Amino acid sequence: MTSQNASAQLEKQEIWQKDRDHFMHPWTDFSTFKETGSMVFRQADGVSLQDADGKRYLDGIGGLWCVNIGYGRDEIAEAVAEQIRDIPYFSTFGHHTTAPAARLAAKLADLAPGDLNHVFYGCGGSVANDTAVRMIHFYFNQLGKPSKKQIISRIDGYHGSTYMAMSITGVEVDHIGFDIDRQLVHHISCPNPYRRPEGQSLEAFCDAKVQELEDKILELGPDNVAAFFAEPIMGAGGVIVPPEGYHRKTLAVCRKYDVLYVSDEVVTAFGRLGHMFASEDEFGIVPDIITCAKGLTSGYLPLGATIFSDRIYEVISEPQADGAIFTHGFTYSGHPVSCAAGLKNIEIMEREGLCDHVNDVGAYFEEQIKALADLEIIGDVRGRKFMMCLENVADKATRELIAPEAKVGNRIADECQQRGLIVRPLAHMNILSPTLILSREHVDFVAATLRESIEAATQSLKADGYLPR
Amino acid sequence: MTSQNASAQLEKQEIWQKDRDHFMHPWTDFSTFKETGSMVFRQADGVSLQDADGKRYLDGIGGLWCVNIGYGRDEIAEAVAEQIRDIPYFSTFGHHTTAPAARLAAKLADLAPGDLNHVFYGCGGSVANDTAVRMIHFYFNQLGKPSKKQIISRIDGYHGSTYMAMSITGVEVDHIGFDIDRQLVHHISCPNPYRRPEGQSLEAFCDAKVQELEDKILELGPDNVAAFFAEPIMGAGGVIVPPEGYHRKTLAVCRKYDVLYVSDEVVTAFGRLGHMFASEDEFGIVPDIITCAKGLTSGYLPLGATIFSDRIYEVISEPQADGAIFTHGFTYSGHPVSCAAGLKNIEIMEREGLCDHVNDVGAYFEEQIKALADLEIIGDVRGRKFMMCLENVADKATRELIAPEAKVGNRIADECQQRGLIVRPLAHMNILSPTLILSREHVDFVAATLRESIEAATQSLKADGYLPR
Repeated sequence: MTSQNASAQLEKQEIWQKDRDHFMHPWTDFSTFKETGSMVFRQADGVSLQDADGKRYLDGIGGLWCVNIGYGRDEIAEAVAEQIRDIPYFSTFGHHTTAPAARLAAKLADLAPGDLNHVFYGCGGSVANDTAVRMIHFYFNQLGKPSKKQIISRIDGYHGSTYMAMSITGVEVDHIGFDIDRQLVHHISCPNPYRRPEGQSLEAFCDAKVQELEDKILELGPDNVAAFFAEPIMGAGGVIVPPEGYHRKTLAVCRKYDVLYVSDEVVTAFGRLGHMFASEDEFGIVPDIITCAKGLTSGYLPLGATIFSDRIYEVISEPQADGAIFTHGFTYSGHPVSCAAGLKNIEIMEREGLCDHVNDVGAYFEEQIKALADLEIIGDVRGRKFMMCLENVADKATRELIAPEAKVGNRIADECQQRGLIVRPLAHMNILSPTLILSREHVDFVAATLRESIEAATQSLKADGYLPR
Repeated sequence: MTSQNASAQLEKQEIWQKDRDHFMHPWTDFSTFKETGSMVFRQADGVSLQDADGKRYLDGIGGLWCVNIGYGRDEIAEAVAEQIRDIPYFSTFGHHTTAPAARLAAKLADLAPGDLNHVFYGCGGSVANDTAVRMIHFYFNQLGKPSKKQIISRIDGYHGSTYMAMSITGVEVDHIGFDIDRQLVHHISCPNPYRRPEGQSLEAFCDAKVQELEDKILELGPDNVAAFFAEPIMGAGGVIVPPEGYHRKTLAVCRKYDVLYVSDEVVTAFGRLGHMFASEDEFGIVPDIITCAKGLTSGYLPLGATIFSDRIYEVISEPQADGAIFTHGFTYSGHPVSCAAGLKNIEIMEREGLCDHVNDVGAYFEEQIKALADLEIIGDVRGRKFMMCLENVADKATRELIAPEAKVGNRIADECQQRGLIVRPLAHMNILSPTLILSREHVDFVAATLRESIEAATQSLKADGYLPR
């Protein structure tokens, strides 16, 4: 072992130990964590990452649906360092501002559909949704409708992890062990075409889901329902693409009962589906609020935004009685350095035509991943462009799942990792959300590696008795 | 006008307009905002800032209680740029990590008192407190005490602006127009010695406040009360320093009923009171959880942390039944770039002996600000070291306030601003929380400018009939 290698090993061991002893991760699985600890990443460039041993991986999950422009962008490092040297921070509370915060707000207003011309900043998707709830409450209070406060969202919708954002989240496994608000938030079922009743047409399935929303509004009373939260394509719930027309029809139901429509574009915005925002360009709707984060800075720095309509702004920007002000916001709302990263990120996307690239190579990616549907355990392949999911099953005809203890998602992810590809295991599924700069050759590598890995996992499942031989 | 000036003016106008039209600020006062818009800052260095016209101001509020090491630190720009070039982001969900996240966690565990050895990251104080609530719920669920969920906090305590953090916040004016959770959160009164009943000793006042906590726990039932949230010194509630012994005694009450004590050190940590953490070093308590943000990176990048005890970790890190995991966390939990800024910030603080500096010059600051108590409208001057508040009153004997519409806090802030000093107006008060690198000469400037400004404001209040001539 060279002394350089020895020092790299010591450093890896130091980081591993500190991580294990002191850093409690999101979504830690304590059945293994204390023993195995974390995988240490030390370097990233373009479409791939390097671990502490120097092994390289193509990053099939884009950090976590977010490194849209890819790693190693020196321009972002420069813009960020320059902003820190100019002015690293000043509160935007009350009435102070800096150039990046103002310019990014104007840029987002320009990119967002319809009259969504106003931006409230936070530091991530959870807070963007939490802010949306608080803003909506304020809006209906201002309108003299204090009972109109209930929120409807969907089973398997994911909206974040603050107390309120996790209450809106409908991924039921995420609620285990925690408490959520069950007074203010109500979940309707997931529009997952793969799990629709046998024999039902997609159209009938869509109509039933839309009807369920209307029924829920009527059950709660339209005077009590404030908003409907929905991702254009559900992300962490398993990349659920709703049936054609679902969004337009649910929006129409919301309009009918004066229920605000919040489109959670934390995953779908900034190019993942080939558009800056997917609500209108991909699904034909102009919601009242769009929440976003992740791709906004390509994850280079924390930033989130709640982008809302003129109609809402006009109501909430009327001075309240008693001189009270809009008492909501965060120390880091409009952080100049995060906003500088966001501006540079969007500039890069536009200059390089990244949305066009996604519409080309992302479409090829979708096609290549969908071609895996012929594999023995692949029950469903769904998603669009650079947002895809493979659902693994024991039986393609009955759609029955493999036993949870077989951890099929993890098995496939492990097989991929050995072959230099990172994919995300999510229960019995695997998620793909790579950087948006993949070439066709990268796509071919991902598809081939997945095929090989799924085949290997299938063999190991058979060997372990989880599938018939 | 030179062409350089003309271009600076055009740029200022552009930023002002974009800000006004598209950036909705935290705590916007819409009685003036649409007309006056925002003050644009363009540069900052050391203890001061420059506006878009090139006018310089000593920053008396440290950005917003946060730019502890001062502006213009090239070292932070370098560390941040280097981290972006190395690896700007990768998810820490599940079991992945990077060096800065692991090392900062270990460093925080080292700095934090007692057995507070575990770190959960977010991007600010609100989320740090929101995480504390969710973690505490999970903790008591794991212990088989599902009813033990209620939170107690104090009137005038400030804990953030997510739905849950604002519910815990007890600043009543901040609740106007919004909804909060009134089922889970209960407020007891504020231990503000200045507003204690006439003739009551500080000791008796303290005992009464401690008794009120115990009474509230007994009223709700100890089996229903999960946690008590308290800032060592209340910040946005008006820099309330509780009477001697208050924290030790409230902690004892919490221990008696197995109620967890959350010390919200978002403002007080990282040097503001001359210690890395104030809970133990300034107030003699080791809480169960410390939440922090702001000074953790000196505001250079968004970052927050929930630091918690071995005792809590042992409970929540036991694998749950059914293979469920700790389903809480954020895309930007443990963001490598924010953590790199935090590490460098702490390194600078330690290398420059910033806590020692605060214990020296901060003590001088406290003394000089307290010397303003002789002024006609100064009812109370309170706080410690670089965390001070001036409470303005109409009558020093009765402590009666000046009419709210006189906006005395704003008047004084405006007078200061004209003289090149930024102070924060907070209702009828003014807050001072400068960078921690002030020299004695800077302190003298702040004290002299405040004296002059308060005298000028007093004259204008008299001229406008808000005070007797």
